[in-house]
Amino acid sequence: MSEIGKVETQFQTIATPENPFVFRSGASLDHVEIAYETYGTLNADRSNVILLFHALSGSQHAAGFNPAVGGTSFWTPECENGWWDLFIGKGKALDTEKYFIICANYLGGCYGSTGPSSLNPATGKRYGSAFPNITVNDIVRSQALLLDRLGIGKLLAVVGPSTGGLSCVTFATLFPDRVRLVIPLATGVKTTVLNRIILLEQILAIENDPLFRSGEYYESGAPETGLALARMISHKTFVHLDAIERRASKEVVQPEDRFSWYQAHDHVESYMLHQGKKFTDRFDANTYLRICEMWSRYDPVIESGANDSVELFSRSREAGHQYLVFSIDEDYCFYPEEQAALVEQLKGAQVPHLYLTVHSEKGHDSFLLEPELYTPHIQVMLRNASEAAG
Amino acid sequence: MSEIGKVETQFQTIATPENPFVFRSGASLDHVEIAYETYGTLNADRSNVILLFHALSGSQHAAGFNPAVGGTSFWTPECENGWWDLFIGKGKALDTEKYFIICANYLGGCYGSTGPSSLNPATGKRYGSAFPNITVNDIVRSQALLLDRLGIGKLLAVVGPSTGGLSCVTFATLFPDRVRLVIPLATGVKTTVLNRIILLEQILAIENDPLFRSGEYYESGAPETGLALARMISHKTFVHLDAIERRASKEVVQPEDRFSWYQAHDHVESYMLHQGKKFTDRFDANTYLRICEMWSRYDPVIESGANDSVELFSRSREAGHQYLVFSIDEDYCFYPEEQAALVEQLKGAQVPHLYLTVHSEKGHDSFLLEPELYTPHIQVMLRNASEAAG
Repeated sequence: MSEIGKVETQFQTIATPENPFVFRSGASLDHVEIAYETYGTLNADRSNVILLFHALSGSQHAAGFNPAVGGTSFWTPECENGWWDLFIGKGKALDTEKYFIICANYLGGCYGSTGPSSLNPATGKRYGSAFPNITVNDIVRSQALLLDRLGIGKLLAVVGPSTGGLSCVTFATLFPDRVRLVIPLATGVKTTVLNRIILLEQILAIENDPLFRSGEYYESGAPETGLALARMISHKTFVHLDAIERRASKEVVQPEDRFSWYQAHDHVESYMLHQGKKFTDRFDANTYLRICEMWSRYDPVIESGANDSVELFSRSREAGHQYLVFSIDEDYCFYPEEQAALVEQLKGAQVPHLYLTVHSEKGHDSFLLEPELYTPHIQVMLRNASEAAG
Repeated sequence: MSEIGKVETQFQTIATPENPFVFRSGASLDHVEIAYETYGTLNADRSNVILLFHALSGSQHAAGFNPAVGGTSFWTPECENGWWDLFIGKGKALDTEKYFIICANYLGGCYGSTGPSSLNPATGKRYGSAFPNITVNDIVRSQALLLDRLGIGKLLAVVGPSTGGLSCVTFATLFPDRVRLVIPLATGVKTTVLNRIILLEQILAIENDPLFRSGEYYESGAPETGLALARMISHKTFVHLDAIERRASKEVVQPEDRFSWYQAHDHVESYMLHQGKKFTDRFDANTYLRICEMWSRYDPVIESGANDSVELFSRSREAGHQYLVFSIDEDYCFYPEEQAALVEQLKGAQVPHLYLTVHSEKGHDSFLLEPELYTPHIQVMLRNASEAAG
């Protein structure tokens, strides 16, 4: 277990009937809570704060052990250990002896932040299909409101691996005066055709499930086969295919659960079915759909209301941002070409940056599993930013 | 239109109650018809025959114009032009002035060969779920029986692009004395983890559709959304992603058909939905499932009852086969590594071969679209094999 020990999720109200939260789509909500956790200690001048954005199916619980979170039915044992435990703690990439790290569940999420599975106070029922579509812009603004409530002005750094990197870059360009250092890892700058195709497949897999009922399934039972298929479609992009073959048990395990009708023929099939199945216990299909759509529609220029990418990143140059961009050579989720495109845009706007490719046999999941490939550079950049802030 | 002009599909009975067809699984059928077409003229000593295997969703109609095929409800205008028209004809790769080309619909298919959508004479109803699973071994043996009925002994060549290449190699190693030249294009030697994952996704997409009803849907309506999703999942591997972006209309076309519930957001989405949708008009879900399973379980050593790959391809060496193996550099369906693996096995068994990689921006579909990249080598190899046969 992490030396951080037991942690608790906290909650902050960021919207009320007097101050509703208005989504980029124009929809609004009168009640919004954000679930978040913190690690380390806020210093006296509040200059040591790092905001960390989680990935697609992650949560606010980035480090330590958290056995239970109120307000969600999706907290399974799989969720109990922090998803970035290898990167957060004493002496680690995000050093809890030096920094105060905040990680919040996305608006629209299913781990405590207000989302489709939350009770709508106006009706006493879950939002379901009535919950608005979300954009990266909405997530970033909701977390800026959280920082406001916590009395935190300027961040030392924003950090975001995978889809968290979309929010990380948008936070930096939407609120340039609130950031010093920007660390996107294994992420994209704009959705590619392949991203959009794979996300569309996942959306259709869920919506084709007869139990989906346009999102109104909380009483009648979740669209588990559709959600499991969606997860399988994405899972193959997270893990290097050689690793799938290695990880998969050599036995063929015939599903005895909701996939018992499917006759598994080999260990790769039983492994993938298992991945899909266990995901349905810990995630809400309506949240998953909104995050898929959010990613599919992501365009940093639009999210931040810029004219073009040069104007967008000129905000970073003018605000004195430093970027630290990581690629993973065999990443089949966010291909190295995508980070190269981000770096081209940083160059185009003359933004100071370091850009590294790590070589890994683990594929996209390297950002969770191999802290030794990332930690030294993150530590140095944070120390330099700290000194500049001090 | 092709200079071959109008052609007709012919039918041959290869199994009767007295001589049933026994599948590798042990199942058997008392009535099997194979739908096939021929192009060119059979020479006096029957030494100019080329057997061509079609790809996953192809048909017996490889060249010319065929407006109607009896016994199938899936013959749409999209099927009317031969799928390999650019490669078959006077002076083309398979020259109809010199050779007699046979192409047959797979056993289990939906274009005239006996398959799940055929009427079962014993019940007067369609086979549906009662139709046996098929293997490449079954397809190859059914086509050898077709050749027997047509009085054709030894072939000049077997040719197979894409999944047709699996049958091509298995025909050569199961019936080594019936073949001279073996031409697999853009195919695999054994299913990879990625193949199996993508095929599993497609199987689940269909079986999750509530209209699928375990394959008994012919009275109640086909599982069109599931089949369309399956097609979309595979389609992205056939076409280079840049080409998808180019091909997709620049307008967002909102589906008004069976996907009208889905709000398309960009031209890639509407293009993919269109691809999925039009496929459901021309293909049977039960056939698609059987071909997916067939591919997923393919292992040439098992199909041909060999001990290992060396013994398998030693049959080719002993029979004096020549192989002509083509890769496409940016093929995301059968990756170039797969043909490299085939060639390693040919080398291991000391089988004479030529091995070329074509460079194409069209991805896997190059084998349909760019005859100039393949034709000269195919012509020379066929001429040499002809001279050796003469």
